[in-house]
Amino acid sequence: MRAVDLNADLGESYGSFTVGRDAELIPLLSSANLACGFHGGDPRVMDRAVGACSAAGIAVGAHPSFPDLVGFGRRVLEASAEEVETDVLYQVAALDGFCRRHGVAMQHVKPHGALYNHANRAPEVARGVAAAIASYDPDLLLVCQFGTELARAGQEAGLNVAYEGFLDRAYNRDGTLVSRSVEGSVYHDRGKATEQALRMVTEGTVVAIDGALVVLEVDTLCVHGDNPRAVEFIAALRDQLDAAGVVLTSMRDVVQRRAGRA
Amino acid sequence: MRAVDLNADLGESYGSFTVGRDAELIPLLSSANLACGFHGGDPRVMDRAVGACSAAGIAVGAHPSFPDLVGFGRRVLEASAEEVETDVLYQVAALDGFCRRHGVAMQHVKPHGALYNHANRAPEVARGVAAAIASYDPDLLLVCQFGTELARAGQEAGLNVAYEGFLDRAYNRDGTLVSRSVEGSVYHDRGKATEQALRMVTEGTVVAIDGALVVLEVDTLCVHGDNPRAVEFIAALRDQLDAAGVVLTSMRDVVQRRAGRA
Amino acid sequence: MRAVDLNADLGESYGSFTVGRDAELIPLLSSANLACGFHGGDPRVMDRAVGACSAAGIAVGAHPSFPDLVGFGRRVLEASAEEVETDVLYQVAALDGFCRRHGVAMQHVKPHGALYNHANRAPEVARGVAAAIASYDPDLLLVCQFGTELARAGQEAGLNVAYEGFLDRAYNRDGTLVSRSVEGSVYHDRGKATEQALRMVTEGTVVAIDGALVVLEVDTLCVHGDNPRAVEFIAALRDQLDAAGVVLTSMRDVVQRRAGRA
Amino acid sequence: MRAVDLNADLGESYGSFTVGRDAELIPLLSSANLACGFHGGDPRVMDRAVGACSAAGIAVGAHPSFPDLVGFGRRVLEASAEEVETDVLYQVAALDGFCRRHGVAMQHVKPHGALYNHANRAPEVARGVAAAIASYDPDLLLVCQFGTELARAGQEAGLNVAYEGFLDRAYNRDGTLVSRSVEGSVYHDRGKATEQALRMVTEGTVVAIDGALVVLEVDTLCVHGDNPRAVEFIAALRDQLDAAGVVLTSMRDVVQRRAGRA
Repeated sequence: MRAVDLNADLGESYGSFTVGRDAELIPLLSSANLACGFHGGDPRVMDRAVGACSAAGIAVGAHPSFPDLVGFGRRVLEASAEEVETDVLYQVAALDGFCRRHGVAMQHVKPHGALYNHANRAPEVARGVAAAIASYDPDLLLVCQFGTELARAGQEAGLNVAYEGFLDRAYNRDGTLVSRSVEGSVYHDRGKATEQALRMVTEGTVVAIDGALVVLEVDTLCVHGDNPRAVEFIAALRDQLDAAGVVLTSMRDVVQRRAGRA
Repeated sequence: MRAVDLNADLGESYGSFTVGRDAELIPLLSSANLACGFHGGDPRVMDRAVGACSAAGIAVGAHPSFPDLVGFGRRVLEASAEEVETDVLYQVAALDGFCRRHGVAMQHVKPHGALYNHANRAPEVARGVAAAIASYDPDLLLVCQFGTELARAGQEAGLNVAYEGFLDRAYNRDGTLVSRSVEGSVYHDRGKATEQALRMVTEGTVVAIDGALVVLEVDTLCVHGDNPRAVEFIAALRDQLDAAGVVLTSMRDVVQRRAGRA
Repeated sequence: MRAVDLNADLGESYGSFTVGRDAELIPLLSSANLACGFHGGDPRVMDRAVGACSAAGIAVGAHPSFPDLVGFGRRVLEASAEEVETDVLYQVAALDGFCRRHGVAMQHVKPHGALYNHANRAPEVARGVAAAIASYDPDLLLVCQFGTELARAGQEAGLNVAYEGFLDRAYNRDGTLVSRSVEGSVYHDRGKATEQALRMVTEGTVVAIDGALVVLEVDTLCVHGDNPRAVEFIAALRDQLDAAGVVLTSMRDVVQRRAGRA
Repeated sequence: MRAVDLNADLGESYGSFTVGRDAELIPLLSSANLACGFHGGDPRVMDRAVGACSAAGIAVGAHPSFPDLVGFGRRVLEASAEEVETDVLYQVAALDGFCRRHGVAMQHVKPHGALYNHANRAPEVARGVAAAIASYDPDLLLVCQFGTELARAGQEAGLNVAYEGFLDRAYNRDGTLVSRSVEGSVYHDRGKATEQALRMVTEGTVVAIDGALVVLEVDTLCVHGDNPRAVEFIAALRDQLDAAGVVLTSMRDVVQRRAGRA
């Protein structure tokens, strides 16, 4: 029986600047990536987000970013491996303070925005991310895409990785995402998104934008809650995963099942 | 036999902005208070400071601040107890990330600058500081002055407190420091400073600015390393403590000895 | 014939953090107070806000704050007069850069949040604000409340002041606002708010919370656009001002008319 | 008769973090580039730096940066042209506030660190810088290197540019600087530096690292004051320029003389 985790980015508000639909999303997820102050998520937001996830029984992970609040962590910063490593360690540890306070064991780390994308292809940056996690707690899962530099760096650092799949994005035949600037790179058709999600989870494949069949592992599906209809959609996706016999469970559980299969 | 700890504020550089004489001071101290990013101390500085203290075998503590880099944490911010608590928890946990990386057990927390002074007299702020520490790790020592709101809040939160004494500052008869704006509040005479330090440690008293004898506990002496002669002075102070039969040891050890005496 | 200006705080978004209902409010106002980066309002937001006000033909003013993005400028910071003066000058000048780019002459400066409230009662802070404006451009209007330290400091610095009235807040008999923590300090009844606004503008008086009649000058009414019904309410207020023969015009025009009457 | 300007980066301290040797350098310069808050230079530092330059009679320019205080503006940030333009406009205007206060007319704008280097080769970034300056004040000089994208963008925006030469750095045959990572790229021999400076100014040429003779314009020489011997060296350089009949004058004057020759 297949299993998958559903993750989303939460706790990205900052001070009086409130963003996201955390309260609506939490009941639909199995894991949450929580901002750590560098792109969103001040200490009050972090505290409340950990508390809300804990109350709902969903797993918590850190969502560290380049230090770029005004750019919401979406711009690449030419940071050294040491800068990435220490910035990530700082953020992961800071979030863990709130986990301790709520009696929650942190499950995973997923780099945010430009740091995530950059770590997919820049080995030095990937190594910085992985080293930070390994030095803080080698039991933390590293969320990354299958076949990327970040996945490689995580494995070399001795981490367990959780492979992430994107249901509403087109893939290239090398397993990377098609750039948003390309026509057709983002799916607006929900049927297409659901179909891609089911295929990734049940068959371990995705059909690339050029028609090629790509083999990949997917332990966790990334969902976005930017608009009210997203919530509706995620509920429908959960029903379809259920109908296809896919168990929705925590990222750690999915990764362990995959290890058991291997 | 009496014992005392010597602490100083280190790791306060920020990016390219280098301040302090950390390398010269570390060999003379038994404990260091390390900035956590809110008034100084970026993640690289924190990493290196923890590493340097670890290599020298001196104990490490967190030195959390109001969020005020441009004001170096020296200006009171009208923050709520929740804001203080979550800001302190964030900073303590972030520093602990670097302690983990270097295999160091964090010893203490000492609020910085305006947060320290404000917590001495504002019960809500004091409770915020104490609650943060207690929720992160109730074995951490809280550094504070004898008889203050911060000491009270720490004890009420179940923390062990380490009482701090100032050798180069005049005291009021209620055990608080004389404001810097008052003539004679800061000692420039080293003999006077040393004499006050010895009396505080060996007799548990200080002569207030008006001549009254004040009873207080002192577990740790705060030294400053702002100028080259400070280093010289601290070395001389160590010799005099030694000559008076005072053991220089870690803050935790001093606090345990005091508990044993009580 | 009486005249009044309607002002609101706009341009308070920051990066991806979007707040406020600027587009809906602008057509209803005669003046806008634009954030300058210290509590909201990054350079892109500032640029677009000046452009939108210019396109709609409403006057633009700077809305400088204590440096406290995470606290949205709502917390008092123990800053010196020099710190306040230079922080305000920096922000006013920065906003004026965008005014120049759009061919707009800046009309006024209104301190934001805690800086505004603090400057009402702290003479040093008030002088810092006034000195910044006077040194940048003595023709700028300073928005303040009648009878406050800020008004006094503005006049002593040779500035023209624009007196601001609050329609939905109860007044004390000394002309200050009743603290929000007091029952009845904030009006939720729109009839009451409109009545207070009309009385302030047409009679130059307000009935204090204890029933006393307070004499005050009001050149500009502060409106808030935090909820959809606020927009409705402001439209109704405009109609009632119109029905009472009150001309809605720019702050500068209102101040000049008042000067002409005196 | 040839003329040249000497410029240096000043006013880069931030709050309690004091860096640079501004007081020693000012008497040796004809122009100063002042930080504007994004990599150094808080409002107090800006105010004092403008005041000190004004008192010494040297010209003032803005030194805008990517928003990266912890990285001192030395890391490329993947910012859009709009982000660069508005960030530069914000900083230039903010500094001009302090110029107004001191009755100083701002002379020039020189992008700082990574923004300067990136604008040399990235046309979009160069256009953002130039557009900001042109929209604020088209009489401001843009400091850049001869033959770069930044020079081109400045000219296309209708700005007068001032060409900057580096005396202690090796050049490639295309007129760009040899990367610091290359052996021999930075001169430690002062004779070599002085010789290169004199040749650039008097002959309009530089010998590239591969021996090729490169033709370039140099209106202003960039000097660094990072160590005590630098001050000595700059004094010696001034003597040698004088002995060679080169007039030391303001950047604006040099640019006007060059325009007169053309």
